[in-house]
Amino acid sequence: MNEIKLFCPATIANLSCGFDVLGLCLATAGDEMIIRKSNIKGVRITKIVGANLPMETENNVSGVAALAMLEEVETEFGFEIEIYKNIKAGSGIGSSAASSAGAVFGINELLGRPFTRKELVKFAMQGEKLASGNAHADNVAPCLLGGFTLVRSSNPLDIIKIDSPSELFATVVHPQIELKTSDARSVLKQTVSLKSAITQWGNVGGLVAGLYTNDYELIGRSLHDEIIEPIRSMLIPGFDLIKKTAYENGALGSGISGSGPSIFALSKGNETAEKIAKAMSKVYDEINLPYEIHVSKVNPEGVSIIK
Amino acid sequence: MNEIKLFCPATIANLSCGFDVLGLCLATAGDEMIIRKSNIKGVRITKIVGANLPMETENNVSGVAALAMLEEVETEFGFEIEIYKNIKAGSGIGSSAASSAGAVFGINELLGRPFTRKELVKFAMQGEKLASGNAHADNVAPCLLGGFTLVRSSNPLDIIKIDSPSELFATVVHPQIELKTSDARSVLKQTVSLKSAITQWGNVGGLVAGLYTNDYELIGRSLHDEIIEPIRSMLIPGFDLIKKTAYENGALGSGISGSGPSIFALSKGNETAEKIAKAMSKVYDEINLPYEIHVSKVNPEGVSIIK
Repeated sequence: MNEIKLFCPATIANLSCGFDVLGLCLATAGDEMIIRKSNIKGVRITKIVGANLPMETENNVSGVAALAMLEEVETEFGFEIEIYKNIKAGSGIGSSAASSAGAVFGINELLGRPFTRKELVKFAMQGEKLASGNAHADNVAPCLLGGFTLVRSSNPLDIIKIDSPSELFATVVHPQIELKTSDARSVLKQTVSLKSAITQWGNVGGLVAGLYTNDYELIGRSLHDEIIEPIRSMLIPGFDLIKKTAYENGALGSGISGSGPSIFALSKGNETAEKIAKAMSKVYDEINLPYEIHVSKVNPEGVSIIK
Repeated sequence: MNEIKLFCPATIANLSCGFDVLGLCLATAGDEMIIRKSNIKGVRITKIVGANLPMETENNVSGVAALAMLEEVETEFGFEIEIYKNIKAGSGIGSSAASSAGAVFGINELLGRPFTRKELVKFAMQGEKLASGNAHADNVAPCLLGGFTLVRSSNPLDIIKIDSPSELFATVVHPQIELKTSDARSVLKQTVSLKSAITQWGNVGGLVAGLYTNDYELIGRSLHDEIIEPIRSMLIPGFDLIKKTAYENGALGSGISGSGPSIFALSKGNETAEKIAKAMSKVYDEINLPYEIHVSKVNPEGVSIIK
């Protein structure tokens, strides 16, 4: 195999109560990448379509992730990377993660899989470090492993994959405003009340329990965040109304995707998820705010080979 | 049925990362109670053996829990309660919870079970309110339901029972010093750093995932508490050494039971749990500190009928 074409899925990180630890993988939103063996050693970004991103390997998240991986494995040849972006940078659904994860997944395939998907996470995290200054796994873990992922610990890295109940669907709306991760981070308070923290970890426990027991109601009851969301949501136009609309149309829960501005809702069944999408669209249509919207089953597989 | 004799088990609340939300039920440590129908309406405490506790119904935790329950159900008769205490008050293994839970469980049986075990929790919590000023479910939930319990939310009350992996054993040592719950509470800081809180909810997620997947190593890796334990452990003689001893002898994890002073360790298999008990005993023997020690499988059933 000299060339591989990949689907690199978008992801929803945080999931309300699970700030900095939980994420899930989408099936219908994502980039494509082609990774090709080359006689020239090293890694080169040869094509980027759909986004204005750096072509220099060491300034591109997929290049940096690939280089981190190649430090730990011997190869006779090099790699060319073509990136076809569909996920907008700064959307809050794991754009940089898709590129970082795709690069290391593709090279790993071309090398005959020296690493497991889980082992690839740490390399992809180096792409995230370039993108946001923070080598976090919130998006690269679900992108590489599929389903839900829990980053129990970042140092040492300890990631648990949790299979998703089969009828769990996500709706994600991306209002087209720019919200930098650094701004979304800077508004956060560095201390929280013990009371709120207890509420939050009770909900994380409830959400994980709900996923293992296919208890959709419990998943819904657990999807709350009284620490990050009340502050960060103020940066997102129409957040309260979009969330209210999601609940009114049957959502199990709704909150900020990643650091925003995208807003997600989870629901049982595709029909409800589509109904929520329609209602969310109406909210942004009425104020003439451009948006993209996705409805997707949770993707059990993660990044995958197209051909 | 006019009389029922019960085993009312001891419980371990908090379990390191699960402060105020997690608990488990023990099988080998607990009180006994006899509940008897009476022609005199109301609730009377007729006998207390093994502890110096109030006999007046409204000053006794089991009396208060029973009265809370009887406000919600019609009966033609009253109840007498006999309490045979083995769990010492202030030990940190749910002494008041055992009495509160036993009273409502026994009366419910004599009434033909108008309530489920889960519905009984809220009545038993009234006993806890008398004991500590706080109607918490950390101990009464595992005492009534068995296994592990997650109190996702106290208001509204939302309790999830989690079955325990079959080989999970607990060792609990109770150094015989007095440590009031109110003192153990007063040392706590009311704010925590966001970073520590994230670590804690990552661990709660990991612990719950480990319980559902019978992953003993994951359970062990998740049993950490960087918020409460570093402060509260200073009130417990020899805490650091006991904990170190538990790990050296094969414990998956170790921490403060409830608000202390008891210290628990969890391990895979009875043999390791017994080995830990022996090693913990040696630590307190060497400084001539009296203690009680228990080794127990996690009790899957909760409070149970002896005859």
